[in-house]
Amino acid sequence: MDFASRREKLRKLVRKASASSMLVTCPTNVSYLTGFTGDSSYLWISQDRYLLVSDGRFSQQLAEECPDMEVVIRKPNVSILKATVKVLRAEKPTSVLIEGDRVSKNDFDKLSSELKGMAFTTSSGVVESLREIKDRDELGLIRRAIEIAESGFLGLRKRLTEDSGASGTRNWSEKQVADALEGEMRSRGAISSSFRTIVGVGPRAALPHGTPSERRLCESPFVLIDWGAREGQYVSDLTRVLVTGALPPKIDRIYHTVLAAQEAGIRAIQPGALLSEIDNAARSVIARAGFGKFFTHSLGHGFGLQVHESIRMAKGQDRPLKVGMVVTVEPGIYLPGQGGVRIEDDVLVTRDGCRLLSSLPRDLESNRLNLT
Amino acid sequence: MDFASRREKLRKLVRKASASSMLVTCPTNVSYLTGFTGDSSYLWISQDRYLLVSDGRFSQQLAEECPDMEVVIRKPNVSILKATVKVLRAEKPTSVLIEGDRVSKNDFDKLSSELKGMAFTTSSGVVESLREIKDRDELGLIRRAIEIAESGFLGLRKRLTEDSGASGTRNWSEKQVADALEGEMRSRGAISSSFRTIVGVGPRAALPHGTPSERRLCESPFVLIDWGAREGQYVSDLTRVLVTGALPPKIDRIYHTVLAAQEAGIRAIQPGALLSEIDNAARSVIARAGFGKFFTHSLGHGFGLQVHESIRMAKGQDRPLKVGMVVTVEPGIYLPGQGGVRIEDDVLVTRDGCRLLSSLPRDLESNRLNLT
Repeated sequence: MDFASRREKLRKLVRKASASSMLVTCPTNVSYLTGFTGDSSYLWISQDRYLLVSDGRFSQQLAEECPDMEVVIRKPNVSILKATVKVLRAEKPTSVLIEGDRVSKNDFDKLSSELKGMAFTTSSGVVESLREIKDRDELGLIRRAIEIAESGFLGLRKRLTEDSGASGTRNWSEKQVADALEGEMRSRGAISSSFRTIVGVGPRAALPHGTPSERRLCESPFVLIDWGAREGQYVSDLTRVLVTGALPPKIDRIYHTVLAAQEAGIRAIQPGALLSEIDNAARSVIARAGFGKFFTHSLGHGFGLQVHESIRMAKGQDRPLKVGMVVTVEPGIYLPGQGGVRIEDDVLVTRDGCRLLSSLPRDLESNRLNLT
Repeated sequence: MDFASRREKLRKLVRKASASSMLVTCPTNVSYLTGFTGDSSYLWISQDRYLLVSDGRFSQQLAEECPDMEVVIRKPNVSILKATVKVLRAEKPTSVLIEGDRVSKNDFDKLSSELKGMAFTTSSGVVESLREIKDRDELGLIRRAIEIAESGFLGLRKRLTEDSGASGTRNWSEKQVADALEGEMRSRGAISSSFRTIVGVGPRAALPHGTPSERRLCESPFVLIDWGAREGQYVSDLTRVLVTGALPPKIDRIYHTVLAAQEAGIRAIQPGALLSEIDNAARSVIARAGFGKFFTHSLGHGFGLQVHESIRMAKGQDRPLKVGMVVTVEPGIYLPGQGGVRIEDDVLVTRDGCRLLSSLPRDLESNRLNLT
């Protein structure tokens, strides 16, 4: 990873904001700029230096992960804020840009009252704007996180089919499915799942963010699974609906509507297209089919170091897509009490349009599973 | 869970802070006060009402988890901040207390500039202070989270012993150990581990927060494991060192020092004792043995809904322990390049002193494992 060039890009943005230095408090942003994978540490960066305020738990890890970085290790009885005040008092920058969406109101007030005469200004989304465009190394890790998630899912499918029968996987609960998928992804190299896996059988598939319950696969003819893998620092995010029995006509219909909406969304992705336009391309397919009010969330989001990054494809988001952005495309229709369908893939914006990074089949037939 | 009485206690604190209402933005605090287990939602509470600003992904989940709560569902293109402004504009409270350690500087500024004439004041640790004292229901869930973590650990030990040998668990990597423990805890009912399990073989045990690597068990005669289970919304947090070969005399010595320090810490725990006194009781044992500068973190922390809650047993923390608090007691000695020992248990402050909630044996002999 070329952390140095990321810091150079940040310095340019700091100059543009007329500040002489910046304090980065968001742990993910600190990782992005330094390669340090721990947390509880603040990065201060000026035009010619950078240093990390951390604590003793991370001393050795810092020496391994960031051997060239200047590090200030605070004692257990000194808060990170106090240690930061001490650093700034010694470094005397004329001005400090602070992540206004990340720093708490109380911490901001303490910093500015402790350091009178130093100009503190807040920014919004500065490091996040750099993180929107993925470099080659990041894309490699994201591809790997997708590969592990997909291969783990195929492993899960295999187990579901092989061990089925009266006392077998037909009787698995949503939680057992989530646990098995976790094991499949970890055994393929994932650190863990990238978020708490969503498994929704039948009517529970209508909960876009439902957590795995004791409901059993055999209780309904379909199950929605939304999962991802974390590999290194990067993540993936996918959703499929598996059909395990005779699908009710209504669910069959929304499946095809969601699939058509997703395809329309993906087709619309290209550099320069507005985020809201992509959302609309997919949403209008669902609206035309009469299910508009059952698509209750935005079409997709950026991801990378985090599952939800700053880009959001939604109404009112009038910024353009750029080459190197990666987004999920995940339309859904949720019918309370009956069930829901969401299909989610990961897409890279390229010079000539976009490339699907995920590759699991999306058509209904390929997602049929014989559990009897 | 008696969420209503928690809200009543909070209302008393809001009155004490001379505010007519409070906006709770921290997701864990929202869960604590309402029972809603999702995130991305703000709770507004006045002396006679409370309502949650949430979004469509959670509509059905909210109806299931909090059927009596007033809920405002924002549309995908309306930010949570805008939706909150709209609610406050309609409700017209004279003043709003805000969690100053949780709300971002930018969000605070936006709220107060959008709602001129409404008095916004920041608080620090208000809901967190309620969360420090665990009620009966919470203690039940914490005990269960500890039980699962301990039983999962015993399951891991069994697997390590049974499958050992040339091609067996002797060759397991730190990551494989972490993955196996995850499976053992989940199969016993855990939602997941409560944090990324730390597994450190030999010299890597000197990294208090090291992440599992490819280093193999057979490469050193000891391994440190720091793990916990999440069950329902509550967590546990434990550490043991397993001895898998002939222990170097120095590691043997620090093991016994850490154990003696932990026992001294636990003995000191009683209502009224200061947090710093408990830390000192354990720390002075380590200092007297000549390892003071290798105990680089505080003695322990509160836990419950989160792994690290507001109580911290450290120098300078001059608040008293109270009945119903639960804390970890986890002294450690870390010798860079050689290894480290940490022993961590979970303790409840009781009327007559304290009760150990965890029960895995701590002596060195009981933690020997025969892998050959």
